[in-house]
Amino acid sequence: MDKYLFGIDIGGTTVKVGFFKEEGLLLDKWEVPTRKDNNGEFILTDVAESINNKMVEKGVTKGQIIGYGCGVPGPVTDDGRVLGCVNLGWGEFNIEERMSEVFECANVKAANDANVAALGENWVGGGKGLSSMVMITLGTGVGGGVVINNKIVAGFNGAAAEIGHIQVNDEETDSCNCGKKGCLEQYASATGVVKEAKRILEKSEEASSLRELDEITAKDVFDYAKSGDKLALEVVAKLGTYLGKVMGYLGCIVDPEAFLIGGGVSKAGSILVDAVSDVYKKEVFRASKDTKILLASLGNDAGMYGAAAMVVKNDFE
Amino acid sequence: MDKYLFGIDIGGTTVKVGFFKEEGLLLDKWEVPTRKDNNGEFILTDVAESINNKMVEKGVTKGQIIGYGCGVPGPVTDDGRVLGCVNLGWGEFNIEERMSEVFECANVKAANDANVAALGENWVGGGKGLSSMVMITLGTGVGGGVVINNKIVAGFNGAAAEIGHIQVNDEETDSCNCGKKGCLEQYASATGVVKEAKRILEKSEEASSLRELDEITAKDVFDYAKSGDKLALEVVAKLGTYLGKVMGYLGCIVDPEAFLIGGGVSKAGSILVDAVSDVYKKEVFRASKDTKILLASLGNDAGMYGAAAMVVKNDFE
Repeated sequence: MDKYLFGIDIGGTTVKVGFFKEEGLLLDKWEVPTRKDNNGEFILTDVAESINNKMVEKGVTKGQIIGYGCGVPGPVTDDGRVLGCVNLGWGEFNIEERMSEVFECANVKAANDANVAALGENWVGGGKGLSSMVMITLGTGVGGGVVINNKIVAGFNGAAAEIGHIQVNDEETDSCNCGKKGCLEQYASATGVVKEAKRILEKSEEASSLRELDEITAKDVFDYAKSGDKLALEVVAKLGTYLGKVMGYLGCIVDPEAFLIGGGVSKAGSILVDAVSDVYKKEVFRASKDTKILLASLGNDAGMYGAAAMVVKNDFE
Repeated sequence: MDKYLFGIDIGGTTVKVGFFKEEGLLLDKWEVPTRKDNNGEFILTDVAESINNKMVEKGVTKGQIIGYGCGVPGPVTDDGRVLGCVNLGWGEFNIEERMSEVFECANVKAANDANVAALGENWVGGGKGLSSMVMITLGTGVGGGVVINNKIVAGFNGAAAEIGHIQVNDEETDSCNCGKKGCLEQYASATGVVKEAKRILEKSEEASSLRELDEITAKDVFDYAKSGDKLALEVVAKLGTYLGKVMGYLGCIVDPEAFLIGGGVSKAGSILVDAVSDVYKKEVFRASKDTKILLASLGNDAGMYGAAAMVVKNDFE
C-alpha cells in the first residue's frame, strides 16, 4: 500500500498544499485562500476540507497518510506553540494539538515557515544529502533556517535563524521593520538592495545606467552589475560585505557543511555567491573557511516540501 | 547492581579523570600526566591503565561501566574524528574507534573540550534543566559550546561554537592567535582584558588605581571597576559591548533558553552579567530579548562532567 504525506505552507494570502509520496516526490499541489476572519480560526479547517476532497479525488484513505506538516509565518517553538502570527490574526496556541484534531492524525509537526523551507531544501532540494546546513532566504525580507541532522533548530522562543535581524551596521539611521537599526535585512533583502541602490545613486555623481530607470528592482541592480555598471557593483559589494560577515558569524557558531542561499534575490546566481565568498573566508575561523556556498533549488515550493519532510521520521539519506 | 561512567578531560599538561554514578554524582577524580611522546600515542593507554587500577581499587567490574566520554583540546566532528590537536601531538584520526579498543567498550563518545564543558554544565551545573543553552567560556582564550536537547552541536569541521573567533572589531591592528584581527577573544579573554586595560591606561591621562600595580590581572580590572575606578569601568564596558554583540548574534541564530558564562573571567560575577545584558537586549531580535544570562558553576570540573554526560543515553531531566 502506497503511503503519502501532506506539506502545508501557510502564507498571508494563500495556503500552499502539497501531496507527496513518502520519499519526497510531489504528486500534486494547489492553493487554498487564507481566510483571516475571526482571528484566522478557519484557516486550518479550510485546509483540512480541501485535503479531504483531494483524498476522495485521488482515492486515498486516511490509513495511507503518514502525517501532516505545517509551515507558519511566525515563531513556533519546538513543542508546537505558535507565539502569535500578526498577518494571520493568530495569537498564542499549540498548533500541533489543533492539527491533530483537525486532520484526525497523531503524526503532525509545525515550525516557522523560513525554518521549514530550509528543511525542504535539505530533504530534496539544493541542500540534499547535507548533514548540516544554514539556509539564508533573501526575499522581501531576510529569513533563514538552521538544519542539523535533518532537524530544524527552532529556538526557545521559536526565533532561531532570525538571520535578517542580526545587527551589521551600527551607523544606520533608518529603522528596520523590527524596530532596530542596521539589521542585515536592511541591505540584503530585495527592498534593501533597491534602497541601497537609491542611496548610492543619490550620493554619487558617477554615471550609471540605473539612473535611466523609472523604477529600480533588485534584479536590475544585479543585471547592471553583471554588465559592469560601477554603482550597481558597489551595491552588490555592500550586500556581499554584510552578508559575508553574517555568514562568518554563522560559520563560527554552527559550522555547517554548507550555506544555501535562496529567495528572489538568490536568482542573481553566481555574482551573489562571488560577492560573499571572499568576505566569508576572511571573517570565519580558519577551520570553517571552505564551507560550501550553494543556491537553493525549490523556489516557492521549499516550504511545502519542508512541511512534508518534518513528518518523515527516518533520516533523509 | 550500581552503574558507573568515566569522564575524561584531556589537557595539554594533565588529563582529568572523573568516576561518576550514572545520574551525575562525582565519586572520585584524579589526574594523569599527559605524555606527549611519540605524537601523544600513550595518552589514551595511560588513562586506560589508570582507570583499570581505579576499578580494581573500587571493586568495580567492566560490566558495571556504562561508557567512557572524552573531551579533546581541538576540533572533533560529530562522528568522532579528531582533526589534529597541536598541543597533544595528535594528527587526524577517529578517537572513538581508538577509545573502544583501549577501553574495551562500545559506548564511547568524544567531542571538543569547550563543547563538552558546556554539556557538563547542562547536565548538573549552572545550566541544569535547560532545553538549550550557549556556554561562553572566558579564560586564557574564549571558547564555548552550543547545547540543544542535551546534545552538543559539534559542527561539520568540529568547529561549532568557536565564539572567541567571531569578528567584532574591523579596526583592530593587532593579530589574534588565530591569525585574524579583531576577534572577540582579543577583548573578552583574561589576556584580552589585561591588554585592553594597558591600552586604555596608555591612551588616557585620567587617574586610575590600576596605574599603581606592577602587574595587572583581569581580576584586578574587575575588582577596581567594582570600586568605581573610571578606567577599569571603561575596560569592562568595552568587554560588555563586544560580548553583548556576540550574544546578540547567538540569540538571533540559536535563540537558546539561556546563556551560561564560565571560565576564570566569569568569577567577576554580576558586574560581568550587567555589562552584557543591556547590549544584548539592544542587539538581539525582540522575541529573544529576555534570554537568561547565568553563570557556570562547575569550574574546571565542567569538562569531566560533560565527558561523562555524553555517554548517558537518556535525556537529563
